[in-house]
Amino acid sequence: MAQKEGKQNQQRGSADYVKNPHLEGMKEDFLYHINLGTKTNNLPEMFGDVKFVCLGGSSNRMKAFIELIAKKLGMEDPKSEYPNICEGTDRYVMYKVGPVLSVSHGMGIPSMAIVLHEIIKLLHHARCKDVTVIRIGTSGGIGVEPGTVVVTKEAVDPVTFKPTFEQVILGKMVVRSTKLDSGLAEELLVCSKEFSQFKTVIGNTVCTLDFYEGQARLDGAFCYYTEKDKMDYLKKVKEAGVCNMEMESTVFASMCEQSGLRGAVVCVALLNRLNGDQIDSPHEVLDDYQHRPQLLVASYIKKQLQLQTKAKHN
Amino acid sequence: MAQKEGKQNQQRGSADYVKNPHLEGMKEDFLYHINLGTKTNNLPEMFGDVKFVCLGGSSNRMKAFIELIAKKLGMEDPKSEYPNICEGTDRYVMYKVGPVLSVSHGMGIPSMAIVLHEIIKLLHHARCKDVTVIRIGTSGGIGVEPGTVVVTKEAVDPVTFKPTFEQVILGKMVVRSTKLDSGLAEELLVCSKEFSQFKTVIGNTVCTLDFYEGQARLDGAFCYYTEKDKMDYLKKVKEAGVCNMEMESTVFASMCEQSGLRGAVVCVALLNRLNGDQIDSPHEVLDDYQHRPQLLVASYIKKQLQLQTKAKHN
Repeated sequence: MAQKEGKQNQQRGSADYVKNPHLEGMKEDFLYHINLGTKTNNLPEMFGDVKFVCLGGSSNRMKAFIELIAKKLGMEDPKSEYPNICEGTDRYVMYKVGPVLSVSHGMGIPSMAIVLHEIIKLLHHARCKDVTVIRIGTSGGIGVEPGTVVVTKEAVDPVTFKPTFEQVILGKMVVRSTKLDSGLAEELLVCSKEFSQFKTVIGNTVCTLDFYEGQARLDGAFCYYTEKDKMDYLKKVKEAGVCNMEMESTVFASMCEQSGLRGAVVCVALLNRLNGDQIDSPHEVLDDYQHRPQLLVASYIKKQLQLQTKAKHN
Repeated sequence: MAQKEGKQNQQRGSADYVKNPHLEGMKEDFLYHINLGTKTNNLPEMFGDVKFVCLGGSSNRMKAFIELIAKKLGMEDPKSEYPNICEGTDRYVMYKVGPVLSVSHGMGIPSMAIVLHEIIKLLHHARCKDVTVIRIGTSGGIGVEPGTVVVTKEAVDPVTFKPTFEQVILGKMVVRSTKLDSGLAEELLVCSKEFSQFKTVIGNTVCTLDFYEGQARLDGAFCYYTEKDKMDYLKKVKEAGVCNMEMESTVFASMCEQSGLRGAVVCVALLNRLNGDQIDSPHEVLDDYQHRPQLLVASYIKKQLQLQTKAKHN
């Protein structure tokens, strides 16, 4: 049914990122958590030109990212004012410069899923096409040096280390694939070569629902296992080709696949979990680390836009 | 092992909310997501008097709650300035007035778990005793009128409707109980009688990992089921004694039970899900609804503090 709807949309020439026949019959669609709606906002006018959606956990970081994009694309506001498009809510922030949207997603799978559902509907209502979505985040490295940027090959679950995401729908468990766009990951890796000041690798990413016990940390409020138990698990993780652990990649990848959006996950490792649990590097070091995925993705976007402009002129 | 540690703590007379023998051996504990640490902050001095921790999803709402508490307890700052104790990070906000802490938890189980791990460790380091933790939130009602306040009897999972929470630890599924303090729920219900302007009920709460497909909505980016499928599921939910659905209660209840903290969940229903999916009431109506759990919990806290003062004087 959903696939059929997708085809109908394609025939009409509108975006087909949504797979939901019920949406067509709604008089209004209010995107509650980003405080935008089809009745209250002219979504095609506001967002019709969007080609890149970049998502990160922290609202401050996504503000910094839009400033970087503006600079990189030569689209700086002389007053340096980039209004938060979701100002009416404190759930998420959203900034836009040219074809780039910068959005916060909070922490964890549910918070990512909410904003991604609403962004995908936004792209649909705004009739956007050929959109790339990139998560720019932080993570715990597995056997990589702190500060290393990891481009995700496969987003895997913490039990089987397979690229799957389990979700309860109508009280039943549904398993979805989390395949990411391998071409996009490769393009990002090629682009990383211009940054000699940090290392970029490609590898699998484990996505967990918990930061402490779920990531085998010894420093949570509860811990009923030994350091040996922890290290045994982390070794298994490493043997599965995993370079880092974070908390959003599987649902992100699964929703990109469902919708047909090109998606990538680019996270810096704030520490090497094989050496410890606490994130206690000095503030300025962590700031530098967190800036790295932004630099890489901003450079990638600039190149893609230049290629598109070239293609148009030829 | 963890239980043994708990007993040792009790013998020392310090708080025993944490169940983690590894913590004792750490030179420093930096609570990364709330930007506080045992080396950088005098936690007993800052938080030693805390008796109530109130958590809610939205940062603005938790700011409004501390202002209400200050007014209610006659502890208003003449300048109305309540500094955000977690100012150095944008992950969560935290405010304090007298023995009450008001903290945001973001959206979803993982975001709640992160802040609760760090709050429980904070209470431990600050040597707090006899602390009550209350989640004040919003939810989708199941067969209750919009604006109804629901005090959770049991926080249940969306598959079996049993009070359990599943968590992956070291790659294995662990099932934990989510029993809440029934005495506390009853006390809150008694306290609600003074508010004639809204209805308060006690009932079960389903906790999901997703807002759209996970709560059987028809208005997400993806939907592969019919309206009948949705209604069949929601009817089953209602028959299990459920009054509302939200996204944090099971992990909250499970962590309260693990730590030995008295815990309650008090959420207003923003809509009746048996009548629709979209949250489209006018802004001022939603604002009034969201204020209701705050009014109830502030009144409860005031009464408890009066009782404690009386008990001291007798």
